[in-house]
Amino acid sequence: MKKHILVIPGDGIGPEVTAWGKAVLEQIASQYGHEFTYDEALMGHAGIEATGNPLPDETLEKAKASDAILFGAIGHIKYDNDPSAKVRPEQGLLKIRKELGLYANLRPIMLFDELLDASSLKPAVLRGTDILFFRELTGDVYFGEKSRSEDRNTASDLMIYHRYEVERIAHKAYQAAQARSKRLCSVDKANVLESSRLWREVVQEIAKQYPDVETEHMFIDNAAMQLVKNPKKFDVVLTANLFGDILTDEASQIAGSMGMLASASVGDGTGFFEPIHGSAHDIAGQDKANPLASILSVALMLEISFGLKDEAKRITTAIDHVLKAGYRTGDIADTLTQPDKILGTKAMGEMVLQ
Amino acid sequence: MKKHILVIPGDGIGPEVTAWGKAVLEQIASQYGHEFTYDEALMGHAGIEATGNPLPDETLEKAKASDAILFGAIGHIKYDNDPSAKVRPEQGLLKIRKELGLYANLRPIMLFDELLDASSLKPAVLRGTDILFFRELTGDVYFGEKSRSEDRNTASDLMIYHRYEVERIAHKAYQAAQARSKRLCSVDKANVLESSRLWREVVQEIAKQYPDVETEHMFIDNAAMQLVKNPKKFDVVLTANLFGDILTDEASQIAGSMGMLASASVGDGTGFFEPIHGSAHDIAGQDKANPLASILSVALMLEISFGLKDEAKRITTAIDHVLKAGYRTGDIADTLTQPDKILGTKAMGEMVLQ
Ligand SMILES: CC(C)[C@H](C(=O)O)[C@@H](O)C(=O)O
Ligand SMILES: CC(C)[C@H](C(=O)O)[C@@H](O)C(=O)O
Repeated sequence: MKKHILVIPGDGIGPEVTAWGKAVLEQIASQYGHEFTYDEALMGHAGIEATGNPLPDETLEKAKASDAILFGAIGHIKYDNDPSAKVRPEQGLLKIRKELGLYANLRPIMLFDELLDASSLKPAVLRGTDILFFRELTGDVYFGEKSRSEDRNTASDLMIYHRYEVERIAHKAYQAAQARSKRLCSVDKANVLESSRLWREVVQEIAKQYPDVETEHMFIDNAAMQLVKNPKKFDVVLTANLFGDILTDEASQIAGSMGMLASASVGDGTGFFEPIHGSAHDIAGQDKANPLASILSVALMLEISFGLKDEAKRITTAIDHVLKAGYRTGDIADTLTQPDKILGTKAMGEMVLQ
Repeated sequence: MKKHILVIPGDGIGPEVTAWGKAVLEQIASQYGHEFTYDEALMGHAGIEATGNPLPDETLEKAKASDAILFGAIGHIKYDNDPSAKVRPEQGLLKIRKELGLYANLRPIMLFDELLDASSLKPAVLRGTDILFFRELTGDVYFGEKSRSEDRNTASDLMIYHRYEVERIAHKAYQAAQARSKRLCSVDKANVLESSRLWREVVQEIAKQYPDVETEHMFIDNAAMQLVKNPKKFDVVLTANLFGDILTDEASQIAGSMGMLASASVGDGTGFFEPIHGSAHDIAGQDKANPLASILSVALMLEISFGLKDEAKRITTAIDHVLKAGYRTGDIADTLTQPDKILGTKAMGEMVLQ
């Protein structure tokens, strides 16, 4: 198989972890006889530094020409504490999602048995959890009109949904539910929000087309609670952009660490694969970051964009072996980890390659 | 002390649990020689059934004339699955918050040692957690303009904040932080939302007036994650209406059950006290509901609205005793609970009175 992959390392720990995602891609290509070609581009703070633009035109062109994109992380502390900054790294990520029509963000919550103890939740609560989030990614209050009054004392963002936006992601989520355990939970705040009432109406309609899938509707506050109380309750979770942002980060604790979670954004064309962790500037460049989420992003790419299931499985199996052998990065280590088995980014990356 | 208290039982389990809150008030009054007078009024589904209005005029008048309000719960499953219903129970709650100027919702996350095991989080993660949430309650996407296009295919809600709204709750939160451990975490989504950027700007300004308090700003997705990972990290948490709704429900799992959490809404005039749990129609009228959150709401009323600290302490001590003696309602029982110590609503209420 011939594929062209764009690598966008981004900010903070992005470059370090993405290097290992790419290394794994290269190894898979040579082992399975695929021909993967690569290009690289800038985004986020890195884009601003080089060109003044968080999403340089060149990056967008390269992205459109690619079969899949491996992305690292975005963001810089400098902007976080300056609410009045006009140009911000995150704009690059939001714009590329919109421009590439990446309306469906898939976030599987994978549980490696070996990491059950790394979570703050009790193993008995966790065991058996397997959730697949479908987060809408190109609508909602993220993209609705923003405004600031002239005296700067009033600020607003429009939370808005169109029927077609809900329909297309609902179909994707229901199809996934059919291929899994046939349960879908749609999360909204329909008791308060008009946009959530539209969301619920549309999901209720689409549900009729998938009579074999059992649908539940839940309010976001309740969902945030149930996810801690009894995560096993959930299978496919379908939700809006903002609620999905919150719930999936919360759910990352189920997997022991954000350092273990990958996500796939798909839609009209090329697919976009990234760890759900952020740029973590506090540990950037220190060989401390966990490269597994980037490597798992590559597994998602192989499976979802290229349909290469065996190759994807090969990667998750390799990770499983490394974890079973007791190796950990700092974020997933616990009191039982042998000190000499706590690895840096490079050592962990190499361990997975072997 | 002479006080006039309005009791609004509301929907579902509201009447059952509120009865015990009121019984505790009566006992405190007689023990400490206070003169509490009571009135009762309808709201929510109960208001709609009786008058067609989720907040009957009479209820609002009585509320304005009261020194404090004890509220039960709101909501009915019938409306939840009918996104097109025009009149909804929740409108009553939202309207009374707005009409009474209840802009600050205080939600303390209290940890009873005895309940450490009832949580899905590990006891070691929980122990020592003590969080006080300040949730803004009369602004945000809850009250911004809602709209639905004529073809009904587009729906929106305006997420909007005015400077004065952020200022007044920020002051309350900082004052509370000064009286506690002098740490405040403000939660927003300033990397994406303009309303959050205003929020962060204003909090940064107010922070300067409280130099003895250490301020941290956190994105909502990260906060939702950290709350599970390391709840001890938080002390006073200040946040907007929607984010507060989500975070406090999530945090309820820290206390073992929503059945244990009370909240106080304060602002321009009378105070409003309610359990954070909902109407729980599935167990309504079955003598199963946990009355402790309503009783704890009464403790908050005595302390916050009437300044009666000893009386409030008397209540939490009584609850502590009952829990220490091994008594539980179903929601907070675990495998170690003796079956004959699992109590219904009434038995638990009486146990606390004793
Ligand atoms: C960086 C930020 C804009 C982004 C989001 O909120 O979507 C991130 O939190 C994510 O979840 O991908
Ligand atoms: C019932 C609902 C409108 C309400 C809210 O969202 O504010 C509830 O969840 C709460 O937290 O008090």
